Amino acid sequence: MNYRRFFSEAIDQLHAEKRYRVFANLERIVGSFPRALWRGPFGPREITVWCSNDYLGMGQHPTVIGAMQNAAGSMGSGAGGTRNISGTHHPIVELEAELADLHGKEAGLVFTSGFVSNEAAISTIARLLPNCLILSDELNHASMIEGVRRSGAEKKIFRHNDLAHLESLLQAAGPERAKLIVFESVYSMDGDIAPIEGICDLADKYNAMTYIDEVHAVGMYGARGGGITERDGLAHRIDVIEGTLAKGFGVIGGYITGSADVIDAVRSYAPGFIFTTALPPSIAAAATASIRHLKTSTAEREAHQRQAQHTKDVLSAAGLPVMPSETHIVPLLVGDPELCKMASDRLLEKHNIYIQPINYPTVPRGTERLRITPTPFHTDELIETLRDALLETWEALGLSFQGETQPAAAQSARVIPLVVSKSGG
Amino acid sequence: MNYRRFFSEAIDQLHAEKRYRVFANLERIVGSFPRALWRGPFGPREITVWCSNDYLGMGQHPTVIGAMQNAAGSMGSGAGGTRNISGTHHPIVELEAELADLHGKEAGLVFTSGFVSNEAAISTIARLLPNCLILSDELNHASMIEGVRRSGAEKKIFRHNDLAHLESLLQAAGPERAKLIVFESVYSMDGDIAPIEGICDLADKYNAMTYIDEVHAVGMYGARGGGITERDGLAHRIDVIEGTLAKGFGVIGGYITGSADVIDAVRSYAPGFIFTTALPPSIAAAATASIRHLKTSTAEREAHQRQAQHTKDVLSAAGLPVMPSETHIVPLLVGDPELCKMASDRLLEKHNIYIQPINYPTVPRGTERLRITPTPFHTDELIETLRDALLETWEALGLSFQGETQPAAAQSARVIPLVVSKSGG
Repeated sequence: MNYRRFFSEAIDQLHAEKRYRVFANLERIVGSFPRALWRGPFGPREITVWCSNDYLGMGQHPTVIGAMQNAAGSMGSGAGGTRNISGTHHPIVELEAELADLHGKEAGLVFTSGFVSNEAAISTIARLLPNCLILSDELNHASMIEGVRRSGAEKKIFRHNDLAHLESLLQAAGPERAKLIVFESVYSMDGDIAPIEGICDLADKYNAMTYIDEVHAVGMYGARGGGITERDGLAHRIDVIEGTLAKGFGVIGGYITGSADVIDAVRSYAPGFIFTTALPPSIAAAATASIRHLKTSTAEREAHQRQAQHTKDVLSAAGLPVMPSETHIVPLLVGDPELCKMASDRLLEKHNIYIQPINYPTVPRGTERLRITPTPFHTDELIETLRDALLETWEALGLSFQGETQPAAAQSARVIPLVVSKSGG
Repeated sequence: MNYRRFFSEAIDQLHAEKRYRVFANLERIVGSFPRALWRGPFGPREITVWCSNDYLGMGQHPTVIGAMQNAAGSMGSGAGGTRNISGTHHPIVELEAELADLHGKEAGLVFTSGFVSNEAAISTIARLLPNCLILSDELNHASMIEGVRRSGAEKKIFRHNDLAHLESLLQAAGPERAKLIVFESVYSMDGDIAPIEGICDLADKYNAMTYIDEVHAVGMYGARGGGITERDGLAHRIDVIEGTLAKGFGVIGGYITGSADVIDAVRSYAPGFIFTTALPPSIAAAATASIRHLKTSTAEREAHQRQAQHTKDVLSAAGLPVMPSETHIVPLLVGDPELCKMASDRLLEKHNIYIQPINYPTVPRGTERLRITPTPFHTDELIETLRDALLETWEALGLSFQGETQPAAAQSARVIPLVVSKSGG
């Protein structure tokens, strides 16, 4: 074995398959968001970011930044230990109480990331429950798939948002067997929403636990930002609500909320929680400030929905192939991986607009797309500039204005080989 | 299945086995470290933390805090995306270059935690290499064990720091088969150091890759804080050096460094890296400031070594059962889990001194201990106060002053069932 040659060839292979990823080196500028400095091959240039998951721009909110700076100034830059060994600080205790309140649950638990929260919580719950069967939506995020795998439990994949298929699997398992249904509220690549009430009804009927990922919804939906489950009055019917502090709330970290005992079990048994340094006080304080702000202020949510809808309207009116989406996510169909990458490159280099191409295996082949995420800070003027840039790009590259309007579900990347591939990376 | 009763009983069982953990709610105070405010059952009280992994107190260094505050003020509280989708910001690019330089490697890659860095890097490297055999020290950290498991590769556990045993396993595998040796430089519960040079010699002889975890050494050992591998002039002989930003450097996050291709392979293939939001600019900037400071300043390392040695000397002279340690970690043998917990409780409640008890399964039964981590800020006076408090506690609880001086290796918690149990949580 020649290790050096082996890894060199592994990288060459990615280039050959046109799957090699180059990260754009960005410097966001507080007060100018969504503008950022791009340090690319042509030297530093100001660009507009149209694909950020800082959906509400809370990452530049003065209250959030102030909370971060104050906590760093008074408590320091780190937590100094795992949660059990000197790392449980007061701001993280406050944050967990805030999160429990947000979702109307007894308890909350914070992790270093949303990825870790899904992986640790799903695997721990399903491993604790004897002979647990996991029922998992086929389009669940990579972090949930990792949690399912690591649990070692038997799993059944149900077709995306398909209640009839889910019911047939629940029925086959019977009411006595432990069952955990894991799914998302908002699926981030298509922007569609799960039939949450129907899933809860089935969970009641067949005695299953429910675990929902609300990472693309918390802060953005519901009267206090509690997500789709709050908006639809269903939070009390879900056993575990998972969310992130890194998107709508603009900071970093992930969490779960639920009954005191379930949360305590994950806290006590999950290695990915136990053996890791706690998030710093500055991060916890910033997240709490952001959540508290969004519990009472609806201005961000309203502006967000308005600008997202306006983006869809303007791009559709211009004849661009906007894919159907029930949410703030605006996918634009390209349908070919190389053209998708070329469109993204052209937008950045010629128009100073940054939108990552989303290719297979993140989405099914033939549904390659630009995924646009308008924020409250993407003004009508920026939307018009975007439209013009897209039109120029579409014409220059000869892209289709027709668009398929439904992704080819049959080609969905359900099985993930070495490169885990599901949404979001 | 009654889910509510099931989880309630799972928690009851932890209480019954006296393994239920209560986290101390602490508020550290910049400028007063290692003092902190403890919000316990008696109301807020000032205590001295003696078990922090902020080993050098860099978490309260003005340069580090200033860097965090400035980056938050100019770039905001979050990264806004995964590394590939708008989350690669300039401070994280600078941080990775700084880390590569620290270890004399071609490239570095930052993760949200040390746990994730070990899990993602080990599993990805071993999964990429065809038919890889992993050789893993029996006392490796939980995060490394998770990486080994998740790789799906065959593994052989070698006896702790036992070169002869490692050689016999390498020999049996033969030179052609891909092999990855994973081990730590400083083992954090006993404070002993691996025979790194001997392991490198064996790796050369039998054509194996080497992966070292330096989390309890970076910042603290070597002329520039590059860890034990720098101190001993061995960094160039190791393929992958993993470290943390959360201990010696006082912030949060983990990383790997190595050849450009190996790092690029992990960057391209590891789901725990790809599908997670990047660390915020403020965290990256603080970490870079801390690393840069410790590359040139040796005052912290010298004071750290002095206070650690002085702690050992003072406690030993008082007849307390200090376990042998080659490093800054000062383990004090209790040898019984309930007494260990009682000692910890008494120190906190009566003496305002916080040292977590370390019990099975984190350490072998019969070697339960108090693990003391002096920093440069633990003055001689604080060390004397600690000695007096320990003597009072030892006498009041009738603890043994003899101590076994060697942990019972045969009882070592090698296999981790549901509760992953290895060092550090």
